[in-house]
Amino acid sequence: MSEDVKEAGIGTAQVSKSLMVFSGRSNPQLSQSIARALRCDLGNVETDSFANGEIYARYKQSVRGADVFIIQSIASSNVGSVNDALMELLIMADAAKRASARSVTAVVTHFGYSRQDKKSAAREPITAKLVANMLTVAGVTRLITVDLHQGQIQGFFDQPVNHLTALPIFASYFLQKGLSNICVVSPDVGRAKAAKKLADLLDADLAVMAKSRPGHNRAEISTVIGDVNGKTCILNDDMIDTGGSITAGITALKDKGAERVFISATHGLFSGQAYERIEKADVEEVIVCDTVPVPDKHLTGKIRVVSVAPLLAQAIANVFNEASVSELFDPDFAL
Amino acid sequence: MSEDVKEAGIGTAQVSKSLMVFSGRSNPQLSQSIARALRCDLGNVETDSFANGEIYARYKQSVRGADVFIIQSIASSNVGSVNDALMELLIMADAAKRASARSVTAVVTHFGYSRQDKKSAAREPITAKLVANMLTVAGVTRLITVDLHQGQIQGFFDQPVNHLTALPIFASYFLQKGLSNICVVSPDVGRAKAAKKLADLLDADLAVMAKSRPGHNRAEISTVIGDVNGKTCILNDDMIDTGGSITAGITALKDKGAERVFISATHGLFSGQAYERIEKADVEEVIVCDTVPVPDKHLTGKIRVVSVAPLLAQAIANVFNEASVSELFDPDFAL
Amino acid sequence: MSEDVKEAGIGTAQVSKSLMVFSGRSNPQLSQSIARALRCDLGNVETDSFANGEIYARYKQSVRGADVFIIQSIASSNVGSVNDALMELLIMADAAKRASARSVTAVVTHFGYSRQDKKSAAREPITAKLVANMLTVAGVTRLITVDLHQGQIQGFFDQPVNHLTALPIFASYFLQKGLSNICVVSPDVGRAKAAKKLADLLDADLAVMAKSRPGHNRAEISTVIGDVNGKTCILNDDMIDTGGSITAGITALKDKGAERVFISATHGLFSGQAYERIEKADVEEVIVCDTVPVPDKHLTGKIRVVSVAPLLAQAIANVFNEASVSELFDPDFAL
Amino acid sequence: MSEDVKEAGIGTAQVSKSLMVFSGRSNPQLSQSIARALRCDLGNVETDSFANGEIYARYKQSVRGADVFIIQSIASSNVGSVNDALMELLIMADAAKRASARSVTAVVTHFGYSRQDKKSAAREPITAKLVANMLTVAGVTRLITVDLHQGQIQGFFDQPVNHLTALPIFASYFLQKGLSNICVVSPDVGRAKAAKKLADLLDADLAVMAKSRPGHNRAEISTVIGDVNGKTCILNDDMIDTGGSITAGITALKDKGAERVFISATHGLFSGQAYERIEKADVEEVIVCDTVPVPDKHLTGKIRVVSVAPLLAQAIANVFNEASVSELFDPDFAL
Amino acid sequence: MSEDVKEAGIGTAQVSKSLMVFSGRSNPQLSQSIARALRCDLGNVETDSFANGEIYARYKQSVRGADVFIIQSIASSNVGSVNDALMELLIMADAAKRASARSVTAVVTHFGYSRQDKKSAAREPITAKLVANMLTVAGVTRLITVDLHQGQIQGFFDQPVNHLTALPIFASYFLQKGLSNICVVSPDVGRAKAAKKLADLLDADLAVMAKSRPGHNRAEISTVIGDVNGKTCILNDDMIDTGGSITAGITALKDKGAERVFISATHGLFSGQAYERIEKADVEEVIVCDTVPVPDKHLTGKIRVVSVAPLLAQAIANVFNEASVSELFDPDFAL
Amino acid sequence: MSEDVKEAGIGTAQVSKSLMVFSGRSNPQLSQSIARALRCDLGNVETDSFANGEIYARYKQSVRGADVFIIQSIASSNVGSVNDALMELLIMADAAKRASARSVTAVVTHFGYSRQDKKSAAREPITAKLVANMLTVAGVTRLITVDLHQGQIQGFFDQPVNHLTALPIFASYFLQKGLSNICVVSPDVGRAKAAKKLADLLDADLAVMAKSRPGHNRAEISTVIGDVNGKTCILNDDMIDTGGSITAGITALKDKGAERVFISATHGLFSGQAYERIEKADVEEVIVCDTVPVPDKHLTGKIRVVSVAPLLAQAIANVFNEASVSELFDPDFAL
Repeated sequence: MSEDVKEAGIGTAQVSKSLMVFSGRSNPQLSQSIARALRCDLGNVETDSFANGEIYARYKQSVRGADVFIIQSIASSNVGSVNDALMELLIMADAAKRASARSVTAVVTHFGYSRQDKKSAAREPITAKLVANMLTVAGVTRLITVDLHQGQIQGFFDQPVNHLTALPIFASYFLQKGLSNICVVSPDVGRAKAAKKLADLLDADLAVMAKSRPGHNRAEISTVIGDVNGKTCILNDDMIDTGGSITAGITALKDKGAERVFISATHGLFSGQAYERIEKADVEEVIVCDTVPVPDKHLTGKIRVVSVAPLLAQAIANVFNEASVSELFDPDFAL
Repeated sequence: MSEDVKEAGIGTAQVSKSLMVFSGRSNPQLSQSIARALRCDLGNVETDSFANGEIYARYKQSVRGADVFIIQSIASSNVGSVNDALMELLIMADAAKRASARSVTAVVTHFGYSRQDKKSAAREPITAKLVANMLTVAGVTRLITVDLHQGQIQGFFDQPVNHLTALPIFASYFLQKGLSNICVVSPDVGRAKAAKKLADLLDADLAVMAKSRPGHNRAEISTVIGDVNGKTCILNDDMIDTGGSITAGITALKDKGAERVFISATHGLFSGQAYERIEKADVEEVIVCDTVPVPDKHLTGKIRVVSVAPLLAQAIANVFNEASVSELFDPDFAL
Repeated sequence: MSEDVKEAGIGTAQVSKSLMVFSGRSNPQLSQSIARALRCDLGNVETDSFANGEIYARYKQSVRGADVFIIQSIASSNVGSVNDALMELLIMADAAKRASARSVTAVVTHFGYSRQDKKSAAREPITAKLVANMLTVAGVTRLITVDLHQGQIQGFFDQPVNHLTALPIFASYFLQKGLSNICVVSPDVGRAKAAKKLADLLDADLAVMAKSRPGHNRAEISTVIGDVNGKTCILNDDMIDTGGSITAGITALKDKGAERVFISATHGLFSGQAYERIEKADVEEVIVCDTVPVPDKHLTGKIRVVSVAPLLAQAIANVFNEASVSELFDPDFAL
Repeated sequence: MSEDVKEAGIGTAQVSKSLMVFSGRSNPQLSQSIARALRCDLGNVETDSFANGEIYARYKQSVRGADVFIIQSIASSNVGSVNDALMELLIMADAAKRASARSVTAVVTHFGYSRQDKKSAAREPITAKLVANMLTVAGVTRLITVDLHQGQIQGFFDQPVNHLTALPIFASYFLQKGLSNICVVSPDVGRAKAAKKLADLLDADLAVMAKSRPGHNRAEISTVIGDVNGKTCILNDDMIDTGGSITAGITALKDKGAERVFISATHGLFSGQAYERIEKADVEEVIVCDTVPVPDKHLTGKIRVVSVAPLLAQAIANVFNEASVSELFDPDFAL
Repeated sequence: MSEDVKEAGIGTAQVSKSLMVFSGRSNPQLSQSIARALRCDLGNVETDSFANGEIYARYKQSVRGADVFIIQSIASSNVGSVNDALMELLIMADAAKRASARSVTAVVTHFGYSRQDKKSAAREPITAKLVANMLTVAGVTRLITVDLHQGQIQGFFDQPVNHLTALPIFASYFLQKGLSNICVVSPDVGRAKAAKKLADLLDADLAVMAKSRPGHNRAEISTVIGDVNGKTCILNDDMIDTGGSITAGITALKDKGAERVFISATHGLFSGQAYERIEKADVEEVIVCDTVPVPDKHLTGKIRVVSVAPLLAQAIANVFNEASVSELFDPDFAL
Repeated sequence: MSEDVKEAGIGTAQVSKSLMVFSGRSNPQLSQSIARALRCDLGNVETDSFANGEIYARYKQSVRGADVFIIQSIASSNVGSVNDALMELLIMADAAKRASARSVTAVVTHFGYSRQDKKSAAREPITAKLVANMLTVAGVTRLITVDLHQGQIQGFFDQPVNHLTALPIFASYFLQKGLSNICVVSPDVGRAKAAKKLADLLDADLAVMAKSRPGHNRAEISTVIGDVNGKTCILNDDMIDTGGSITAGITALKDKGAERVFISATHGLFSGQAYERIEKADVEEVIVCDTVPVPDKHLTGKIRVVSVAPLLAQAIANVFNEASVSELFDPDFAL
């Protein structure tokens, strides 16, 4: 054995590091795209769900001393529910930590539970903070993520966070279409800031929708603040969940005279009746990113997907190479 | 307002506490049984799964200053996967902590992931420890649980743990049946200790099964160590998952001349083909506890359920009343 | 000595608690008002600044076993800078913890640094999270605060937070004035949600201001989204700092035809040229709360102060009496 | 079972607490004295050392909800080495925490390793801080101790510390002897502060000894600063270890004309040749406390023991009764 | 000075690391063997016990930036009791951490207290977890250890653990002896898993001993499950403490017709009457490892020592060189 | 983008580090001197105080992967109060941590609040520990500091601390002056150890002052222990605050016949009436270091400043180069 040891170079050594990118099972297509952009292969990890639903993960190659990046969308997907996806990420982080990875970066393309970021009623949880604490306790040392519901979620971590935004990707998309007379619309008073950013990128007008309940036992109605008459409206949100509020928004915009309506939203969850609602809605296109996988069968209609893979690949490369990530898009930064 | 304040008795007050028992959605029948045994109602908590699979919980009554007990089975169930059940428990704990509960006890009737309690291969996680850390970070201040896969999991916590066992319940059941010439069989060398405890309670013989692989590309075979010929065998395990090893065990025992075979296992997960396998197996009865719910439709055949509700109710009452819990059954205690 | 011990009742005792309210030096008037509302005296604590600026605090009465509430505004004040006020609070918490207080609640009437709640440029701190961590490490076990810049700051804590709002107090004030044809205006896209809440309380219209820079080297201009022509505008913000943006907002509203303009803002910091700017601005009244003290000499003009003392007193009483605080106003709660 | 539960009063209950005092094996006589002063019996705990030296502890009565006080001297004693005594204390704390004690107070009559309170050479440990961290991690929630080597060690804890002093006990002893023309002498420049406190209590003069090495390869010599000629000198230290420096001090004082020499030291470790050295030294009496047990056979000569039991009993009673402990003697307090 | 600084290469530098292996005083022979296998010298550290039993450690060479490995057996030894050995290790870790070591690996050849890994009676400690927490708080960032009493103890740490096993070393030893008709015997139902692993390595039969108490006031008896008649039995345990159960096991095996009996146990504590018992017992050889030092005078009889030095040296080399350690023997891994 | 990524060298890389030294605003002259000694430029960081007193900091260049050293004096200065200086340091540390610095060393030239290092009265804080905890929570991974009030403050940290002393700088200064018949005087019994060290460096005599209060309502007087008659006295302290005790000391020494009096003190705070008192006092020179900036206008009289810049530069260089810092002066080390 001593020869091996001698060859192993006991004594003093330069410290080196390697970049290893692994994919959870929730968004394998995006992971492949990121790997291609990085010109590397995805690392070899076994992930499986047992018959009783418990998830198992094991790295099939050494990660000792490596900078491990784990790509996962915390969302319902092939792996199962949003909680299954979260647990798989945590288990992969735990295994990497115990296998002596140098660092463990969670590349969370969609941060599930990000809307539960404060108490909106008495005796509620703040589940986004709970998720942050769970990632920390599992061994995650850095977070890379895209378009959090609120930028303040960054502060739920004490580790470095790289918060990227898809807004410039949407802006490029709309600029290439050559739309004119654009008004970016926020579907909610709480989302006005993001809509304003997109409006500035497109040199467009801004409108804000506000929901009101005109009385007890009366249905909630959407008011549009700002002028959308005759305009090409881009209703911009961070995510499309069941599609209820977005389709109500389309109707309200059309009622106010909007000529064309587009939707842009970073995270396309498309839960419940979302696809049916969109199909029926008076909207030209619904643009989402690939932060949550959209099944191919839904891509034949109005839904378009633009990719965040180049953005995430560049962020990973810059973190590994200790270059600045701030030159990349950050939704909280002043334009 | 000042009258209210005055009435509120500002100044000095006795500290009081109240017992509040809440149920997650994974095992409502057991929770009801426990509440009945405690002669109290279950607390009022709203739990729901959104269309995107995210779980939401909110206490509908004040828990400020209360000793909150949350009953949940970390197992696949109506609430969804094992991970959904775990997340619901964590969210309920987080909400209780933020709502100023005096203490938050997780009554985990089945501790999912308890078999992943050490690394059995390189670069594996230790998920049972991860779950323990997640419970801690969510605000759980005490754990009450039943028949952990290994008693050492207690040490994964730095908070108090009450570890109960169903072995005496099984012993009572078999004693009432008036069986004779009993041999308790461990299905695995690693489970021999629990089998020995049950054997002692029944004043019975002990046998141990060991799995071997006689050569490369040869199927694993089960050897029986000890004499089971002509005996009434009780194959005792902590859980029945897919039923594969338990039915292989039945066959091996019958091959060795066992006259009758019974199965006892605390946690009846019955994943995958378990029910079918059991139906076909040469076994008289399969006795499990209600730590994991068994659908009624499966109770018509060989499967019998005995309840841990009285045991858990007594443990909750003793914790609240600051009486000793150690008089209750603990599988790690010397008999 | 043994007689004393005997009298002391060694053996078993009921646990009692007492409410003790202490004031830092930043906002003594508010503290007195709160104590009056609670019908108790402020606790006896010595606080001083040495010649070198170091702050010293010492409780002059036992706090052992007491629920200690420390009232402090983290803002520039008589005690010195915002950092001096913060440090005094931390030192008082540390001393209470080491003196065996049962709990230490920081009643932070204005949470300084709350605008630094996320990174808005590369390599920035998240100082609001740093402050949260500092409070935690100093021994604070609960936070009561008013109108945080963003509700998400609640999640910067893992301890219970009671987040109160002054919006209903402002609503009462304006309702009593009998104003009509009201439009509540958000001075910024990021503040639209709070403006909407006030509008709902007043059954009023909503408008949102958005700042844009029409080109490089061009001054930023404010656009008003929504119709304010001929209306009584209430420009509502969480705080008035130097008054720059608020007075620019007044001008923009008047330019758009607003008939009357009122300002409401929870925290009146009035830094730099704020008083002069307000004096010159075309505004009828500026309503702020007493969360930050306003010198009497500034109360002769347009500035009016409404008190949060009853609100905070009730919150303190409810926490101590383990009653629900959620019936009190919370800005994050759905109306 | 349900009757029991009903009787147990499920629902709401007053919170009560009980005082339970347990003794480690290092200083059983002192523990008995404290219990007598408290008019209570010592709690029933089994402590043992196995043949391999591992220590075992188990509470023989319930400690659930109790305020547990564990009395131990971290010093060589019947239980074994200083490390054995420390480990026994830690194990007792761990068991109390896991058995749901309400609080765990370590009554450390002698805080071993307190002299290793800073780095005095490169690459040294700070073992006193390590011990503090170990106590914290074992579950100790409060420390009561006597005459730490430096008062700053209080700050090694973030929990409450009650730091008591035996100096007034020594003062009483010497006042009762009716000595006159007293000079209290510090054996070292670093101990001058304590000597000054005793001098003030006795209205006596002060002298300070300083050790110097007049050159390489020259023996260290003790200089006496201050006038001791013809005086009754009390050489006061916090502990007597091997007695080397104390006996060198006696010689130096006699050389400078001291008429009589007494020694007072809180902790009498009497390691190595201490007893022989003292027997030979030109000293009238050596007064120590019972914080470390002194075998009876050594009490026949010059060594006198005064007890801290009343002081510790009063501190325990006051902590339990939530009375002030500060009225008791604290060496760091200004006189 | 500036020249020095300049030479020191201020600006940018490659990060290098060095391997430094230090030995505590409990097992110096093994440490020397490991260093020889690593072809390096042991690092220069001063360790001493003062007359009062306090332990002192100081590194005599810089460890700044180094990967420090500290070899210690937590067992009674020349350094004193098991607690003395543990404390020395903790102090060495603390000093290395404060001296800016890059990492601190505890190479714990025997993990004392590993049998106290769960509560086996009410109000017991879980001392193995306490020890794990103590190592963590002292600054240990990785554990390398051999044959823990239960593999679950790995999960007591959140840092990486390399758990090695001596079973293949024992297998090699017995294979070289050319024994035939072997039956590996577990002395206890709880140790059956390890015995099974050794049996598989030797392609041997398995038997399990179970202790029973046939009635109150009756002596415990050992039953042998499985057939040992006429066989060469290897009674395999993780440690030999007082030798009581192992010698009872020998008798029982002989009673059941075993032809020859060998003992293998990783850790030879040989406490109390162990040597005398073994001398008298009807056993051919007792094979232990050098994880705990065995005095030379005891090596003349039946006791043989095989070394784990090559195994530990390889583990250290692989950790330092960031090669996989999993190729080495791990007792928890499937064979 | 892929070309950039390719160039960035994805795969494996050597780990490099860079030294980056930043200055807070409290002591810019010293920071410049240190940078000059290190032959590097200070890093580019924006620090500012807003009109409301809140402090803002932002790094203008990437610090990812760098060893960041932040130089700050925690003292009143141009940046504002001692608390403003502390907060600026904490904010800079938080921003560096979140910007992925490899390490964050606080170079605290004067550790404010270091005199509040223990409780000197009931219910006091231990603010020096609070400051240590705040530094830790803000992300500081190492402390370099000069002449702490007590060396034990090192133990308030669990991270590495380099504690340097200016005593040899003072010794050099006095040796160069060619003084003779020197007596170093401690102004207080608690400072005798430092005075002794300076005396040893100068081969001088030692005297110690002790303050007493001869009776109730009588002024405190200073006694001088040791002979100062006809001697050149150097009154040595760690800091000069308001100058009250130091000028009282001068008077007492002169009364006892001291021929000349010099003052040396590491930290010249010169609060309150300090300059006036010194001007009037019968002292030849007052020598302080530049750990706290002294305005130029005060350097015309008796006050002299010697620089610690070479000492700190060497410490920073050695830390970065992983050389030993212990060869530098440490006040706690034996000479």
